[in-house]
Amino acid sequence: MTIPATPIVTFTTDFGTSDAYVAEMKAMVLREARRATLVDVTHQIAGQDVVSGAYVLERAVRAFPEGTIHVCVVDPGVGSDRKLLIANVNEQIILAPDNGLITWAYERFSDVSTHELLWRPTQEPSATFHGRDILAPVAGLIAAGNFDFEHTRRLDRPVLLDHRIATSLAEARVIYIDRFGNAITNVPPTLLNNHTYVSDIGPIRKTFSEVEIGDPLALVGSSGLLEIAVRNQNAASQLDLVVGSVIRFR
Amino acid sequence: MTIPATPIVTFTTDFGTSDAYVAEMKAMVLREARRATLVDVTHQIAGQDVVSGAYVLERAVRAFPEGTIHVCVVDPGVGSDRKLLIANVNEQIILAPDNGLITWAYERFSDVSTHELLWRPTQEPSATFHGRDILAPVAGLIAAGNFDFEHTRRLDRPVLLDHRIATSLAEARVIYIDRFGNAITNVPPTLLNNHTYVSDIGPIRKTFSEVEIGDPLALVGSSGLLEIAVRNQNAASQLDLVVGSVIRFR
Amino acid sequence: MTIPATPIVTFTTDFGTSDAYVAEMKAMVLREARRATLVDVTHQIAGQDVVSGAYVLERAVRAFPEGTIHVCVVDPGVGSDRKLLIANVNEQIILAPDNGLITWAYERFSDVSTHELLWRPTQEPSATFHGRDILAPVAGLIAAGNFDFEHTRRLDRPVLLDHRIATSLAEARVIYIDRFGNAITNVPPTLLNNHTYVSDIGPIRKTFSEVEIGDPLALVGSSGLLEIAVRNQNAASQLDLVVGSVIRFR
Repeated sequence: MTIPATPIVTFTTDFGTSDAYVAEMKAMVLREARRATLVDVTHQIAGQDVVSGAYVLERAVRAFPEGTIHVCVVDPGVGSDRKLLIANVNEQIILAPDNGLITWAYERFSDVSTHELLWRPTQEPSATFHGRDILAPVAGLIAAGNFDFEHTRRLDRPVLLDHRIATSLAEARVIYIDRFGNAITNVPPTLLNNHTYVSDIGPIRKTFSEVEIGDPLALVGSSGLLEIAVRNQNAASQLDLVVGSVIRFR
Repeated sequence: MTIPATPIVTFTTDFGTSDAYVAEMKAMVLREARRATLVDVTHQIAGQDVVSGAYVLERAVRAFPEGTIHVCVVDPGVGSDRKLLIANVNEQIILAPDNGLITWAYERFSDVSTHELLWRPTQEPSATFHGRDILAPVAGLIAAGNFDFEHTRRLDRPVLLDHRIATSLAEARVIYIDRFGNAITNVPPTLLNNHTYVSDIGPIRKTFSEVEIGDPLALVGSSGLLEIAVRNQNAASQLDLVVGSVIRFR
Repeated sequence: MTIPATPIVTFTTDFGTSDAYVAEMKAMVLREARRATLVDVTHQIAGQDVVSGAYVLERAVRAFPEGTIHVCVVDPGVGSDRKLLIANVNEQIILAPDNGLITWAYERFSDVSTHELLWRPTQEPSATFHGRDILAPVAGLIAAGNFDFEHTRRLDRPVLLDHRIATSLAEARVIYIDRFGNAITNVPPTLLNNHTYVSDIGPIRKTFSEVEIGDPLALVGSSGLLEIAVRNQNAASQLDLVVGSVIRFR
């Protein structure tokens, strides 16, 4: 992996956007790497919702180019003894608490290596804001080519959520609801064939326009996973789907 | 039109900011044009509200400098056979579905040319996310100076909304409500003179401070159009104004 | 103070993110300084809430490096005769209306100098959007090294809010509620010692993990000020704290 001259640093948090917290993290990155390109993935992860954070982070890792550095902070355990993680995934770097945020990226890419992040600032970090005081400066140091990887220690068993890609249709679950109300499942296209029929929904479709406005459909969406939708409407509320809902086939 | 060495790419969508979708579009731009400056116009256009999207997009085109590339995705017809549009407006480029989003820019600038965008990625695009799979890569290619304009075809009659700049005061309508509750109309200053009096509101004012806090006023606002406001309060809710409301004069 | 070759410009406003207003300000900066790095602090300051704006702005000034330019617009008096302010604080520049937004930065840093900003655009500015028409172009000119500081005039007494850092525990007040419901006070650590005990809360803690989930605690948070929190929950709603609430000690 090569960190480019104009490195990209992304941010995925549950901080919201009404406080200065996100900007404070960016300031720490820019102090180390003035030429970094900063991209918000989202700061609207529901408070302490590590499951959704893990899903969104994996989408970012899928989209961004080699050398991108992802800072992800959904951290109910801040101030406890949970570890901090630095991971290499898909030729990119993830910096996050070791609380399961890595799960979905860990599951879907084969080239993953994980280390514990031991780096700490010379000034004692705030007890409540490791994103700003540890993860962001490390992102900046990596972006600038100035991070000493001796400040890491191999960690072979990161915390993983009980939240896996389906290996059979019997395991199909909703793993994420997006803002349009589309319900993304853990079912990859490899489990589907022309005969697959989603109970109460219908056959697998190619596009929304195969059904009428207001009708439900199942299709492999932009996530590369099976999604349950209602054309131009909100599937989650109309079909009572939540994270964890079981999807049945026949 | 010249695309500068540090090109600007803007984004106007109804995607919200809670998912990874916006970041995925930005990733596609940065894959092609690492030095691009990315600017969010808004991702809070109400779901599938092409009318508001068209208004906001025109404001962006008015503000940004020559060579800026605007990606605009409010796209109820994704997956149907609606075309994709590439337009030159005010020495800038707009990439958007051909569903009327271009309307307000088309109306207010004289130097508009429109083409159908025929470029498609080598891998078949997602049926649901042409913003990420087609428009963003094209924005990146243009920003990098690598787009082949042979992948376009002249399109003289883009879809336009029934939504026009007023040519007489009889046509005056509210076209947009901003987050402060100001009601922007389709009335340009050229239709107004010293005697113009807005019914139930009063004469045209120069500044908010000409009326008391809580009182309504009409003034040519930062849009360059007549706006109906209430000083330090929400005009739309207090005066029952919505998009489409008729404004009367005497 | 030196403005670097890739200058940083930040934005703190009550504009929300649903309109084009923020992007229009950024466009004006980029017209003057194409290589500027633009960072949003927040646009979710409650409408015309100068007190919260002043607190958030100070956090930004504390976080960013030398030479950063901060544009702050929470401006109930736009269109009246309130002045515009240009301030040097902590080796950075603040551009804001002279309505008290500077207060918290003014209080917490010792190296402050303030001037009235006299620069106006050649075209008469909009009566309602000085952020876009005056402050943003000036930020761009400064970022590009092209601002003529003759367009300023010494202003020794900027408007300050009745809103001060505590000099004794008797003055302790809540000054800001963050999105997690943490209540930040005006009490700096220098007023605290090992015996300080917050009434109805408990002793000063080092980390959240010293109390059980759902229990209240007082600690010096990432603000560098005493904060009242409830572990993993919302302190403001559970303890009925609002801006201005008195904090008692024993």
